[in-house]
Amino acid sequence: MRVVKYLFFTIVALWAMTGASFAAGAGAEGDLSSILEVQKYFRSIHIMAMLLVGFGFLMVFVKNYGRSAITATFLLVSIAIPVYFLKDSLGFLGGADSDVDRLILAEFAAASLLICAGAVLGRVKMHQYILLGLLFIPCYAFNEWILLNGGFGLIEPGRFVDTGGSIVIHAFGALFGIGVAFSMTTQEEYNTPIESDETSDRFSLLGSMMLWVFWPSFCAALVAPKDIPATIVNVIIALCGSTLATYLTSLKLSGKISVADIANAALAGGVAIGSTCDKIPVPYAFVIGILAGTLSTVGFDLIQGWFQNIEKKVDTCGVLHLHGLPGLFGGVVAIFVVQGISKGAQIKGILITAVFAILSGLIVGKILSLTGHRLKPYTDAEELLVD
Amino acid sequence: MRVVKYLFFTIVALWAMTGASFAAGAGAEGDLSSILEVQKYFRSIHIMAMLLVGFGFLMVFVKNYGRSAITATFLLVSIAIPVYFLKDSLGFLGGADSDVDRLILAEFAAASLLICAGAVLGRVKMHQYILLGLLFIPCYAFNEWILLNGGFGLIEPGRFVDTGGSIVIHAFGALFGIGVAFSMTTQEEYNTPIESDETSDRFSLLGSMMLWVFWPSFCAALVAPKDIPATIVNVIIALCGSTLATYLTSLKLSGKISVADIANAALAGGVAIGSTCDKIPVPYAFVIGILAGTLSTVGFDLIQGWFQNIEKKVDTCGVLHLHGLPGLFGGVVAIFVVQGISKGAQIKGILITAVFAILSGLIVGKILSLTGHRLKPYTDAEELLVD
Amino acid sequence: MRVVKYLFFTIVALWAMTGASFAAGAGAEGDLSSILEVQKYFRSIHIMAMLLVGFGFLMVFVKNYGRSAITATFLLVSIAIPVYFLKDSLGFLGGADSDVDRLILAEFAAASLLICAGAVLGRVKMHQYILLGLLFIPCYAFNEWILLNGGFGLIEPGRFVDTGGSIVIHAFGALFGIGVAFSMTTQEEYNTPIESDETSDRFSLLGSMMLWVFWPSFCAALVAPKDIPATIVNVIIALCGSTLATYLTSLKLSGKISVADIANAALAGGVAIGSTCDKIPVPYAFVIGILAGTLSTVGFDLIQGWFQNIEKKVDTCGVLHLHGLPGLFGGVVAIFVVQGISKGAQIKGILITAVFAILSGLIVGKILSLTGHRLKPYTDAEELLVD
Repeated sequence: MRVVKYLFFTIVALWAMTGASFAAGAGAEGDLSSILEVQKYFRSIHIMAMLLVGFGFLMVFVKNYGRSAITATFLLVSIAIPVYFLKDSLGFLGGADSDVDRLILAEFAAASLLICAGAVLGRVKMHQYILLGLLFIPCYAFNEWILLNGGFGLIEPGRFVDTGGSIVIHAFGALFGIGVAFSMTTQEEYNTPIESDETSDRFSLLGSMMLWVFWPSFCAALVAPKDIPATIVNVIIALCGSTLATYLTSLKLSGKISVADIANAALAGGVAIGSTCDKIPVPYAFVIGILAGTLSTVGFDLIQGWFQNIEKKVDTCGVLHLHGLPGLFGGVVAIFVVQGISKGAQIKGILITAVFAILSGLIVGKILSLTGHRLKPYTDAEELLVD
Repeated sequence: MRVVKYLFFTIVALWAMTGASFAAGAGAEGDLSSILEVQKYFRSIHIMAMLLVGFGFLMVFVKNYGRSAITATFLLVSIAIPVYFLKDSLGFLGGADSDVDRLILAEFAAASLLICAGAVLGRVKMHQYILLGLLFIPCYAFNEWILLNGGFGLIEPGRFVDTGGSIVIHAFGALFGIGVAFSMTTQEEYNTPIESDETSDRFSLLGSMMLWVFWPSFCAALVAPKDIPATIVNVIIALCGSTLATYLTSLKLSGKISVADIANAALAGGVAIGSTCDKIPVPYAFVIGILAGTLSTVGFDLIQGWFQNIEKKVDTCGVLHLHGLPGLFGGVVAIFVVQGISKGAQIKGILITAVFAILSGLIVGKILSLTGHRLKPYTDAEELLVD
Repeated sequence: MRVVKYLFFTIVALWAMTGASFAAGAGAEGDLSSILEVQKYFRSIHIMAMLLVGFGFLMVFVKNYGRSAITATFLLVSIAIPVYFLKDSLGFLGGADSDVDRLILAEFAAASLLICAGAVLGRVKMHQYILLGLLFIPCYAFNEWILLNGGFGLIEPGRFVDTGGSIVIHAFGALFGIGVAFSMTTQEEYNTPIESDETSDRFSLLGSMMLWVFWPSFCAALVAPKDIPATIVNVIIALCGSTLATYLTSLKLSGKISVADIANAALAGGVAIGSTCDKIPVPYAFVIGILAGTLSTVGFDLIQGWFQNIEKKVDTCGVLHLHGLPGLFGGVVAIFVVQGISKGAQIKGILITAVFAILSGLIVGKILSLTGHRLKPYTDAEELLVD
């Protein structure tokens, strides 16, 4: 708690020292470049709706932890965006061309952090979400810098294909979160069931729908205007594919339809299409969506239980199955469907991300462990004033 | 179920054969035409929010069927959009000028399908929603082709006035749904009350508000940029009119305010303004909204009960009163308020839609009946894994 | 009730008499000015989402009054927008340049009215919300005219700094509402506790998130395109600051985290940044957000209880602490951080707003009192049909 406060005020102080002046636009009133920036800004607002209402409410599925999940979402977003924005303004590990670009990159970082936090949702204290954010963002920025900005000269800038972040955002966040969960999960947490009820389910489905609706803007956020129409159609068609495949697979595997599958795996098409969304024809997008939805549902219904039994570790929101596996799938599939792709760069980027995310997650989990543990997992009452 | 899967894979196969290449934009970076396409795309996202969160949550009013209603919404949207998109890409029954136009037309089709499904909500199995979608979309596209694209030479293209789809989308979907309900409603369904509680009501009002908020983008989706300001003001003012009229009428008819009236009839102004939204002055829009809200509330509070008693048929969501009557009213009112309208074309279009929608709905209902019936209406437990 | 109906039909009649013709756009297809209008329209839709879903659901925190709160929101928006729009179309107290500008100004008025109504939420009858709207809007327009349009020559147009409405919208609405609450609160209302539960809390947090997400569009609605990027970054960073500060302050003051603090005070950064959002560097915005969040949380946790005990008056939603104090703070802070500001004009505007809002609120509260009182506060059952 004290650590969090200390770091928080350090950021304020650091920022205050930058003494930046007001960034008034230079161009003439209503010229084309302002219009394009405003269009990017609209997409950034859509992403913000995904971060808060989407991810936030998706995590309300935990019956007695809903208000905490939303509070955590508020905190995670509110720490990720200023920290990334500050880093980028100072020119560490890259630096965006404009304020709106920087905002969108900060939102991507926040999305990855929310995915990561989903793995340990309900099992860390509120101040640990903030600490997690403070430790996660530099790691995220470091990986992003290597994959996309030529960091250490490992991958030439522009060679790694990942427009909508299947690897950089989704797989990184999920694998980092799995690392944290490995380091932190206690036996008691493993033994405590995660319960949902019909109201928490409906809230969760609301979050899922908000993610589905605004996903095209997430993938197309920084795409050139002329390629946006084809990109957003691909994203929507991929989501349709994963939604249909989730229904068919869930029914096949469980005999009935699992609400958790619908709320989660239906989105796997959006995760998997990320890498290639602006580079493939529509029918490919449909097939990628179908395969991702199937993979994710198999993950939730078969792999998750089997994995937890073996490892005695808990991934609260199943981020491995919604963001991890479909993200990796999306990054790998690019090798086969994108014309002129650099196979070496793509494989290198995926491997770097996987190894670095898990390792840094394991370490960060250890650090978090040092700052205390909840008494009881998955309850609002421990940290919130409830009646 | 097997039929659904078979048809589903046929679509995938068909599409794969089209072998479309990636539709990269042709124009220069940031030129005007890309900017306009991106603006259309923002409206298409607003419509997507209406389809999933709006229609989806509006239907959560059925207390024990909320999670199924949301699942059904996901499936209906995910089948309607690729099927319409595929049809249009292949040039059957018309064909849009651009990817975003095609997407918006597909969303219109999905909206009409959701309206249709509202009539039998909770009384068909999950796979029957998909089958309904597969049968509905061709009928919808056929009617759209006749009214708007000069199909069979019955109505000259551009003569039928229906910018926001009062007739083509709302009345068609509602009357088709009534047809299906007529063919399918069982005595047991008629005898089973549809229950809601305070939580299902609040979710339903959330859906209603999402529809209200984004309705201007629905009506203005394909309107020329210069006419958009006047169009969206008309839509908002019409919605204000129907909301106020719904309150006054509900209070008058029931002594108290019915939540179902507020959640539904408040939207009737949006339905009725569809035909004329880009062609009339603002005060007319206010009056059309007031009349539509009144008509819809009278429908819900008086006609619905009376009709059900006589016919022993159930219209779960009351789509006749939210979309059917206000839609027809909107199409007819155009004859009196739009300057230079072709009365013949308008009347012909309305009659064709009414007759074709009901007939095809009756037939499709019969077909659906052949694929089985739910054991008990309006319960999540029959098809979902619930605790 | 009868008064409301009478006034309602007077508005319809008045408007019908204006006989406005359809305002078809003049420019060429897709020229720059239409594109800018459409971009403004997208921001207006974001504001509409704040008004209905945001404010509406934020007020659902009252456990047994949620459906009424949403109904009230529908009515308040539906009366405010046409009345302000009519006033402005007739050129009373100013007049906007275009339809979309007029719509945005009407939405600002509706936001202020919703804030005002929050102070007496659950304690007035449904028709009194409409009457409140009919009396509030002229007062709001009068104050806006004096501060921004040079009314009575008191403040030169353009001198009062309040881009996002910290003073004109937030402080005015809150202080007016406090005035109404002073005139209307009964002893019984003071004695009745305002209860919430975990479901009403989650809905309330949903409303809060919708406000947070779309707040940048609220502040930037009428800002020149070239200044929009810097403006929206400031708003988002301010909201991050207030969210983090709310968490730290709430924990400090209560030992645990109050859900009401998170749902409300987290937004104080948006309220306070309003005046200066397009005129200051980013680090300033972060600090303003932190201070506003702290101030608001102290208001909710300390001042509110103390104030209610002394005055025996109830401010249902705590609008004084979310909109009143942070709004005044935002207006005052402009004096210190905006270069070249006219201190005299700023102070004059703030004082005029404070005095006029409270006085007119007190009078309007007295008038409302004459039209009856609810039997029991905070229950849906008194006016809604509930099972």
